[in-house]
Amino acid sequence: MIAVPLPECGVSRFLTLLDGPWATLIVRELLDGPHRFTELRKALPGISPHTLTSRLRRFETYGIVTRTAYPEVPPRVEYRLTPLGEDLRDVLEAMAAWALTVPQPDPHPAAY
Amino acid sequence: MIAVPLPECGVSRFLTLLDGPWATLIVRELLDGPHRFTELRKALPGISPHTLTSRLRRFETYGIVTRTAYPEVPPRVEYRLTPLGEDLRDVLEAMAAWALTVPQPDPHPAAY
Repeated sequence: MIAVPLPECGVSRFLTLLDGPWATLIVRELLDGPHRFTELRKALPGISPHTLTSRLRRFETYGIVTRTAYPEVPPRVEYRLTPLGEDLRDVLEAMAAWALTVPQPDPHPAAY
Repeated sequence: MIAVPLPECGVSRFLTLLDGPWATLIVRELLDGPHRFTELRKALPGISPHTLTSRLRRFETYGIVTRTAYPEVPPRVEYRLTPLGEDLRDVLEAMAAWALTVPQPDPHPAAY
């Protein structure tokens, strides 16, 4: 994968590294510990193998995730957050803490 | 706009409210103060009017942004973060602070 230069604006840089919801959800899973590819697919129903591969490769490129292939039979490949990736815990916690303060919308709004 | 129930998982709820990069970039602009529609378009080159309208409507639906139409000639419509929306400042700052710790990739990686 070609590593493109990252934007200087911190928010834009974040959105380049974690683009779209799947990237963030993959990080959410990996914050629970290392996962195999198939475990990530099972944990994220609806993600395509292509999207999962593409996000994991980007994370590897930027030093957020390591990929370890164990010389076993059958082969085992594990994805694990680096310390840099682990630092995303604070960001995801800030996202979640804020989102949980957003009230559920009124399912039966009054019609005026 | 129909307000769908929000996910119970905080991270998923966040990704429902701020889906895709434009939503976050709109918030980034509004954290600098109220903006008119045309000002937001100018500040976010490449955003389509459709996407901008759609994101602003979702923000209104969930109480993140208020839309104020001033009875002037020509009419003036302003979008402004609510206190709930202003609370996103901490989240965007956490995103940016983390992203700025990610090193730029080596533009000329050694070939082994």
